[in-house]
Amino acid sequence: MEELQTNLSAIDVIIDYLLECSGKMLRPRLVYLSALLYPHESEKVIDISVAVELIHMASLLHDDVIDRADCRRGRESVNHRWGNQASVLTGDYLFAAAFNLINRYPLAQVMDSITSTIQTMCTGEMKQMSMNSNLGITEEDYYDKTYRKTACLFASSCRVGALVAEAPPEQVMILERFGLNLGYAYQVIDDVLDFTADAEKLGKPAGNDLTQGNITLPVILALKDQEKGIKLRNLLDNGRSSADKMPAVVNILWECGALEKSIIQSRKFLKKALNNLQQLPASPARQALKDTALYLMDSYNQRLMDGKQGEGRLQSGNA
Amino acid sequence: MEELQTNLSAIDVIIDYLLECSGKMLRPRLVYLSALLYPHESEKVIDISVAVELIHMASLLHDDVIDRADCRRGRESVNHRWGNQASVLTGDYLFAAAFNLINRYPLAQVMDSITSTIQTMCTGEMKQMSMNSNLGITEEDYYDKTYRKTACLFASSCRVGALVAEAPPEQVMILERFGLNLGYAYQVIDDVLDFTADAEKLGKPAGNDLTQGNITLPVILALKDQEKGIKLRNLLDNGRSSADKMPAVVNILWECGALEKSIIQSRKFLKKALNNLQQLPASPARQALKDTALYLMDSYNQRLMDGKQGEGRLQSGNA
Repeated sequence: MEELQTNLSAIDVIIDYLLECSGKMLRPRLVYLSALLYPHESEKVIDISVAVELIHMASLLHDDVIDRADCRRGRESVNHRWGNQASVLTGDYLFAAAFNLINRYPLAQVMDSITSTIQTMCTGEMKQMSMNSNLGITEEDYYDKTYRKTACLFASSCRVGALVAEAPPEQVMILERFGLNLGYAYQVIDDVLDFTADAEKLGKPAGNDLTQGNITLPVILALKDQEKGIKLRNLLDNGRSSADKMPAVVNILWECGALEKSIIQSRKFLKKALNNLQQLPASPARQALKDTALYLMDSYNQRLMDGKQGEGRLQSGNA
Repeated sequence: MEELQTNLSAIDVIIDYLLECSGKMLRPRLVYLSALLYPHESEKVIDISVAVELIHMASLLHDDVIDRADCRRGRESVNHRWGNQASVLTGDYLFAAAFNLINRYPLAQVMDSITSTIQTMCTGEMKQMSMNSNLGITEEDYYDKTYRKTACLFASSCRVGALVAEAPPEQVMILERFGLNLGYAYQVIDDVLDFTADAEKLGKPAGNDLTQGNITLPVILALKDQEKGIKLRNLLDNGRSSADKMPAVVNILWECGALEKSIIQSRKFLKKALNNLQQLPASPARQALKDTALYLMDSYNQRLMDGKQGEGRLQSGNA
């Protein structure tokens, strides 16, 4: 992408590395499809979609520095390969490139959505840090963190797509709610998968969140269980789990139904998201948004079924 | 500043800490005074001035993570006190807050200047990293790095001030050049001061740049000296100096005239900057810009004179 050329080999090499393995492109797809519901200028929509993906890439670069992650998308993370310095700078560069792209158009509301979303995302990361290894966090804390870390960018993606295409305000709001619910559905199932999928498929060790002290919904629900809650608490030394205790932790999460309850919760959010879509006029773009949501969740469910631990249990859970 | 309230104590505490010791406010002053030359909307000018300072603060937070600095403005740095994570996130938050502030107005050219400047600043930091401890860097490399790291934000500050006040395009360019030259003058003298001032006055150990492998103008000039160049090279193991060798290094820098030549270079840039101002219509605002430039450089010169090492030498050098 020419917008990203710096003529400075250090940054260009990192950007090429990021583009080689570009992930699901979910957020720009949400921007694009939300605009596609209405008459729109194609180039403008594409630029804003790209800007949203750049913001996402930048936030991942910074998150990996913060979490000291050594891999991302199944490969060595940028911070692990080129150092924290390069990650921080390339992230800043991409943020600025995104704003530059948005600023090509007089789209004040879009700029406002994106900058506010970034601020919310930063406070979400801070909240996660401040609650690290804290076994006292509530479901409400979890959903607030999930809103800030994930769902708000999903919501904002749909919102800015609709804004670019000058959708009627009430439909902008409906699309925003769709993105929000899809974002919650996505993060909750992602948090489940962290416990249940193969390390190979995850591209990181199973239970990675909990070994890092990131307390997610399944753990919060399991800690509430009268019998298993105490067992789990005993396994979680200082609010995190060592890798060797992870099989026992995952066992508890299945046994007390915490993983299943989380899966049900994710499906509830997905259902809400699909209901939001129903409030919009039928069109191929609406169908494409629905397909995107279903495909995303199906692919997660498939990975859940593939997970060795989940295999028997999930089927019985579904019965 | 209410714009910066997050209601998240972790970020608010850091922002309060930053505001407690807010530095010289040079860049917002350049924005403000550049606008003051013309009829302008006061609130708009103040908002853009604040935005520029927020960008500067954010970049310092990220630079300190990159340079692993443990102090800033004579106090413990944010990364040292709250960790890299908090610094990266608060920086991102401030960047977004700045864009949010600019976006209150339809100021596409201002937004464009600022985003491009941030991109340039990022490539400058990357360039500095890639040239770390490299004794082969040229004066040209140094000035390019100085442009990216410092002078471009000075230039941009003046430019956006003029743009906000809808100054005539040729005067926008003159103010931009004034900022550019002042930026060079400032960075060169700052690099001199790093060798000559008291640790106490600097708020960091003398020669800090060189112990970090940051090769600045005085060293580049001294390395060119036939006799002293070899002596200096022998002291700089792997392109940096240990703190115990710093007195010997500083001695060489004085003896071969490298520090004096650098001071002269800085004064040349200041003179250019003042000449730029002369091309603008006389007004109290122009005088205030001139006073700012002179005051800034005078305060540096004062600190140079105060420096124990510099005391006798600079006077003889000036004679």
